[in-house]
Amino acid sequence: MTTIGILGAGQLGRMLALAGYPLGLTFHFYDPTPGSPAGQLAPQNVAAYDDRIALQRFAAGVDLVTYEFENVPAQTVRFLAQLVPVFPPPQALETAQDRLVEKTLFRQLGIPTPQFVTVDSLEDLQAAVHQTGLPAVLKTRRLGYDGKGQAVVRSPDDLAPAWQRLGKQNLILESFVAFDRELSVLAARGPDGGCVFYPLVENQHREGILRLSIAPAPNLTPMLQQTAESYAAAILEKLDYTGVLAVELFERDGVLLANEMAPRVHNSGHWTQNGAHPDQFECHLRAGLGWPLTQPVVTGFSAMINLIGDHPAAPEILQNPAAHLHLYAKSPRPGRKLGHINLCAASASELQAVLQAVCRNLFLEKVCL
Amino acid sequence: MTTIGILGAGQLGRMLALAGYPLGLTFHFYDPTPGSPAGQLAPQNVAAYDDRIALQRFAAGVDLVTYEFENVPAQTVRFLAQLVPVFPPPQALETAQDRLVEKTLFRQLGIPTPQFVTVDSLEDLQAAVHQTGLPAVLKTRRLGYDGKGQAVVRSPDDLAPAWQRLGKQNLILESFVAFDRELSVLAARGPDGGCVFYPLVENQHREGILRLSIAPAPNLTPMLQQTAESYAAAILEKLDYTGVLAVELFERDGVLLANEMAPRVHNSGHWTQNGAHPDQFECHLRAGLGWPLTQPVVTGFSAMINLIGDHPAAPEILQNPAAHLHLYAKSPRPGRKLGHINLCAASASELQAVLQAVCRNLFLEKVCL
Repeated sequence: MTTIGILGAGQLGRMLALAGYPLGLTFHFYDPTPGSPAGQLAPQNVAAYDDRIALQRFAAGVDLVTYEFENVPAQTVRFLAQLVPVFPPPQALETAQDRLVEKTLFRQLGIPTPQFVTVDSLEDLQAAVHQTGLPAVLKTRRLGYDGKGQAVVRSPDDLAPAWQRLGKQNLILESFVAFDRELSVLAARGPDGGCVFYPLVENQHREGILRLSIAPAPNLTPMLQQTAESYAAAILEKLDYTGVLAVELFERDGVLLANEMAPRVHNSGHWTQNGAHPDQFECHLRAGLGWPLTQPVVTGFSAMINLIGDHPAAPEILQNPAAHLHLYAKSPRPGRKLGHINLCAASASELQAVLQAVCRNLFLEKVCL
Repeated sequence: MTTIGILGAGQLGRMLALAGYPLGLTFHFYDPTPGSPAGQLAPQNVAAYDDRIALQRFAAGVDLVTYEFENVPAQTVRFLAQLVPVFPPPQALETAQDRLVEKTLFRQLGIPTPQFVTVDSLEDLQAAVHQTGLPAVLKTRRLGYDGKGQAVVRSPDDLAPAWQRLGKQNLILESFVAFDRELSVLAARGPDGGCVFYPLVENQHREGILRLSIAPAPNLTPMLQQTAESYAAAILEKLDYTGVLAVELFERDGVLLANEMAPRVHNSGHWTQNGAHPDQFECHLRAGLGWPLTQPVVTGFSAMINLIGDHPAAPEILQNPAAHLHLYAKSPRPGRKLGHINLCAASASELQAVLQAVCRNLFLEKVCL
């Protein structure tokens, strides 16, 4: 019996376990927070990420380690990698943890990105706007997620307050992209270098949090898909990557700009649970184990609605025959991802009709449509 | 958080939990055997089915109880039902546990069955063959499964040896049905009396064990479906049933004869995990909770291959892009159900092609085709 160790016991870990049990795998989680979503389904070590004794004990009980979020300390992953195989590789985690390193990699690989400049002082910031133009977005290089650690800078007057708010740490200033839409591509690479790709997804954010994904992205052209795949493939190759990688993209006038990457399964891939085979969770596990990575078979047209902060009770959601419910066993809190609903349809227009009906029934129009 | 208690921690319990976690449910198992398939995913009380102290403790920790196999002692279920709501109702379990009671119910409801006679002695048996004709099948009334506890009687000379082998307990003699094929219908009923039905499934057994299911059954006519549904509905109504019920049927010359029923999720419904929404496991839980029972949406054409005794390693199975793997974490043993493979296709002919290719690749032709 192969046991997969997972750093982080949140919803992504939970869904990895739900996808992996049917493959005959067992799971063991490591997370400093007790009572986490994945802890219901498998044993969980509750210990700090720098507790080397606990990490050693954890490593001794598992065959393979992965992580479910990119703010696990890189040192933790480096330490574990000396004891047990870890995927995706530590260098991928380190790249994703620092926006400057990440965007520098994109640039180095010839992947278009918004203009960006490193900012370590107010003087840097004042100089940087000449390169990015205005408006621009000032971001912490590390530990930002769901729109946190960001400030939009619209005029020179905004510079000092933005620096005050986010400063005293390393920042990056990026040109503001008036994008037509946000897309993401999910890709996976096995230890033999073979890659597979899911179709591009269109993502709608509100208040910095993903609300809705549509897959495949409407009006997806083969050219757009190929371009996104070539970007993802270049990153996978460069990092000698194993597992699922998500790359978030902006589309503007048919051009794709890479925004950021996540070295893990990703919220914009949740639709695959009911709209593709294998889904992103199974795909990630297969890749890590060196098992066959078959090109995902996509069935029809999918949408994913995030349930954020609070949501209708399960029975209310399940009155919609098309709704596939995925809850994370988390208590309600503003801005918190509590679950998602997947919808599947045979055509893009049927999907739109189902999506609108479900959002109307559940009073989710304001956040989704 | 609603906790479902499940009697029996085998693969059916395991798959109930895998289907129920995404609905926000938690699970607690009760099974005398430690290290059971479901015990990986949720807490398991390891105690005897007649241990009333353990049963009381179990009942105190759950909101609702169901069972995953029909040989749980009826007394256990009756005892629990005084402490906590139980579904399906104890009278359904008692009916399914005794072939005579079961077939008598079918007859009472006007559901055709093979001819049957109760047999409590060799003299009974000798008289019974005049009613059933020969060949006939002698069966224990209780505790038979997967073809165990049965003897085919072809001539008067077989009567005494068959009685010797199975006798000293209550038996039933049934006329042998030279059926064209075996079918099953899965139905579910909610506490409000509302029923839903899955399409009829064609089942192929070998050595008394289900090997292959095809859903919907090839050449399924609306008439056949309606007839099967009316039989299932009559049983559900009569037993004031809640949950999923499976009825196994013989088809001969377009006529359906009820063979037996299972008051639980059923092996011939496993295809629904990848071919219908909701699947039988979610459907059973929804029914028990009084949550919406939406008519299952069937996507395309499905097959389910049981993995029995031993099976190719998971990576070998997963080389087939169409294969959805479901393993139960059980050790190999002849005749033991270890897992299943679901296949989905857009047409009946494509399904046949995929099924044949997968069976050929995995050397399963002998058991499946």
